[in-house]
Amino acid sequence: MKDQPLIPGEQDLSLMVDLYELAMAQAYWHAGMDRDAVFSLFFRKLPDHRNFVLACGQQHLARVIESLRFSDDHIKRLEELDQFSSGFLDWLRDFRFSGTVRAVPEGTPVFPQEPLLEVCAPVAEAQILESLVMNYVHLESTLASKAVRLVHAADGRPVVDFGMRRMHGLDSAWRGVRAYRLAGLAGTSNVLAGGDFGLPIKGTMAHSFIQACEDEMKAFRLYAELYPGTILLVDTYDTRTAVGNIIRWMKENPDVDIGGIRLDSGDLGEEARDCRAMLDEAGFKDIKVMASGGLDEYEIQELVASGAPIDGFGVGTAIGAAKDSPAIELAFKLTAYDGEPRMKKSTGKTSWPCPKQVFRRYDDTGRMAGDIITLEEETAEGDPLLKPLMENGALVEGAIAPLEDQVEHARRAFGSLPDRIQSLEEPDEPYPVSFSDRLTEAQKQTLSRIERIQEENRKK
Amino acid sequence: MKDQPLIPGEQDLSLMVDLYELAMAQAYWHAGMDRDAVFSLFFRKLPDHRNFVLACGQQHLARVIESLRFSDDHIKRLEELDQFSSGFLDWLRDFRFSGTVRAVPEGTPVFPQEPLLEVCAPVAEAQILESLVMNYVHLESTLASKAVRLVHAADGRPVVDFGMRRMHGLDSAWRGVRAYRLAGLAGTSNVLAGGDFGLPIKGTMAHSFIQACEDEMKAFRLYAELYPGTILLVDTYDTRTAVGNIIRWMKENPDVDIGGIRLDSGDLGEEARDCRAMLDEAGFKDIKVMASGGLDEYEIQELVASGAPIDGFGVGTAIGAAKDSPAIELAFKLTAYDGEPRMKKSTGKTSWPCPKQVFRRYDDTGRMAGDIITLEEETAEGDPLLKPLMENGALVEGAIAPLEDQVEHARRAFGSLPDRIQSLEEPDEPYPVSFSDRLTEAQKQTLSRIERIQEENRKK
Repeated sequence: MKDQPLIPGEQDLSLMVDLYELAMAQAYWHAGMDRDAVFSLFFRKLPDHRNFVLACGQQHLARVIESLRFSDDHIKRLEELDQFSSGFLDWLRDFRFSGTVRAVPEGTPVFPQEPLLEVCAPVAEAQILESLVMNYVHLESTLASKAVRLVHAADGRPVVDFGMRRMHGLDSAWRGVRAYRLAGLAGTSNVLAGGDFGLPIKGTMAHSFIQACEDEMKAFRLYAELYPGTILLVDTYDTRTAVGNIIRWMKENPDVDIGGIRLDSGDLGEEARDCRAMLDEAGFKDIKVMASGGLDEYEIQELVASGAPIDGFGVGTAIGAAKDSPAIELAFKLTAYDGEPRMKKSTGKTSWPCPKQVFRRYDDTGRMAGDIITLEEETAEGDPLLKPLMENGALVEGAIAPLEDQVEHARRAFGSLPDRIQSLEEPDEPYPVSFSDRLTEAQKQTLSRIERIQEENRKK
Repeated sequence: MKDQPLIPGEQDLSLMVDLYELAMAQAYWHAGMDRDAVFSLFFRKLPDHRNFVLACGQQHLARVIESLRFSDDHIKRLEELDQFSSGFLDWLRDFRFSGTVRAVPEGTPVFPQEPLLEVCAPVAEAQILESLVMNYVHLESTLASKAVRLVHAADGRPVVDFGMRRMHGLDSAWRGVRAYRLAGLAGTSNVLAGGDFGLPIKGTMAHSFIQACEDEMKAFRLYAELYPGTILLVDTYDTRTAVGNIIRWMKENPDVDIGGIRLDSGDLGEEARDCRAMLDEAGFKDIKVMASGGLDEYEIQELVASGAPIDGFGVGTAIGAAKDSPAIELAFKLTAYDGEPRMKKSTGKTSWPCPKQVFRRYDDTGRMAGDIITLEEETAEGDPLLKPLMENGALVEGAIAPLEDQVEHARRAFGSLPDRIQSLEEPDEPYPVSFSDRLTEAQKQTLSRIERIQEENRKK
């Protein structure tokens, strides 16, 4: 325990693997099954309270896959589990991903059964990626899919991430900020991640600062002197009293430079209206009113709709833990082996075989009109969504666009969703996704073949 | 972007800070406010679907706090934000936590308003820990509080963590496993974390393995040969057909060594009953039946109550993302500065001043009978929960017990909860927590003093 790291290091990502992946990889190796497999990443139904999933995280994943190595130390740890042969461990020691990854661009809205990402590689290679693929894409897609709803609800007003404290660990708190930027958030309180992912770093003050000073006005004076244009937190003791005191102080000291006030409790709409009225009446029309305190997209939408004079929102728990829907039931399923279609047919979990493509059609106004899922080699009307991300185990040149371009892609993609899908409410009619005739036929034939084999086993 | 790490490194934990913490620290430094502050970590109300929170993560946190340093690179990044003076940045460069941390032992059930942890240190030092304190304790407490419910529901049957793929990032997937061990899980599929935290590493096979072989029996034969005693996944095509084929195969080949079968879809109770009957009838009474597939504690409790012949459970999404309650509204609040009580009184968020202690009483049968929250220096009937974890900035010797002892502590602590609090349902009567007279009086006096100061500001 003593020498354990504080958080897992990137050199150990190859051991972030479910034991069964290594066990299956050894079984493939042992059986000489070394042909290419295609695994498809998708979900069968939308998460609760989501009309689409914003795909995110594929690029981090590609960088992880490219770098994955089993060190001598890893091999030693696996040896100690006493279930791997030295031949297989030698294979792991030489492991370099050699396959292909195709994925939809980051910030693309996707729907049930649509592959967000497909891996094609020798089966054992592709198999041991399973948990990493899901963990990486799951986190960022979960957070981006939540954050984009808050941005939509705020209807143009800036939304800032205050979620670090409630996010699940440090990796989530860090990568989450990239997902938030992609989803259109205007800033983050997270210093490390804001810098790393180019999202403006924002911050005001906490109740503790006012409590430490005890005298609220002393705290405000200290802060305003040090940080011209700062935003003062006014609800530590009593919001209206605080705002009244600030107004008197500003009137007596015209040099005081305050950018805004922040409300963090109570009925935010009512408090905002009262504070705005007090500020306006005193002639401080430029002082902004910001709100925070347990906000989610529904409350923000309601505040905006009610005309509450709030200029921006800080959001913590709702986006940090994607509280109303913290998980997407992503699956990473084998769809082909050695060029032959593969599927399962477990109760309630029927799947679609074969490597695929998704074509997205748009109407005359540029809104998304419907998707069709086809075999990879088919073409159909619309734009193909899956694009090469890795080939021969290496990142495809140009596959990783500058982050600002990806942010713009995500913004346009969200804007092109039908209104009912953008909405926070469940749509009357889901977004139309169909399957090509050839894919449907492939599913039918694969099912028949499976049933024939099962029947033969019964007769043996 | 190119040189960015794949996950944040532990050397960068000091920048995992909300900007306002650094801004406030600079304001304290600037104002010469360098006296000791006490910050208390607690929650105001229980998370949804939880009757208690199992405190977890304090020890990781203590190790993080002990190691926290601002490197030249960090200082340079902060300089670029253009709001910190060189004097304050020098203070940060020399930063070493010098204070005291008291915390409840890991695996202690805690209730609203009870401090899980208190930090006493020069105010700026304590302030910049805020987000790290919350992020560390939040994650592990959230996951442990969920996992302990699954263990309870399984009523003695082993529960194994299959959650890595749905957990929020790699740090969560790793540290979560320690929380799961503390909560009483029997194993994990996560190779790295299982090894690091001494939780047995478990794994069977995935649908992909069967799909790749296409012929299910071929897959079973391959696996059983390589892994004697293995558990076969039987629902890829049709559960009863698969079990029938396995039975015929075992009858014809008495050397075949299978430990169990795993059901992953469909009506698990019904499938388990049918499979158990088929196996028993064929004389394979020792073959275990395991279940997985979107299980949560309510379904496990129902399966157990219905007498479904299931010998163990694998759980993924429910524990991985603590799906029904992924966040605890932890607060890290200033309760004293320079020996004087401090509090806020925001609408709906009234808090309690002063450093505290919690005393827990037990009844004659060893069950927890009630807690009282007191001033730190008070004594009361019962056992004091908060114990020194760090002193003078260093871990207290012996404060970190061997993990197996902590697991045992957590097991006993859960067992000593009243039945209605252990239950998955909301209790008729909440667990009794009271406040000492002296604490109540301190709150009253602090409120009066705040009101007096606010009033004076109004008159100025």
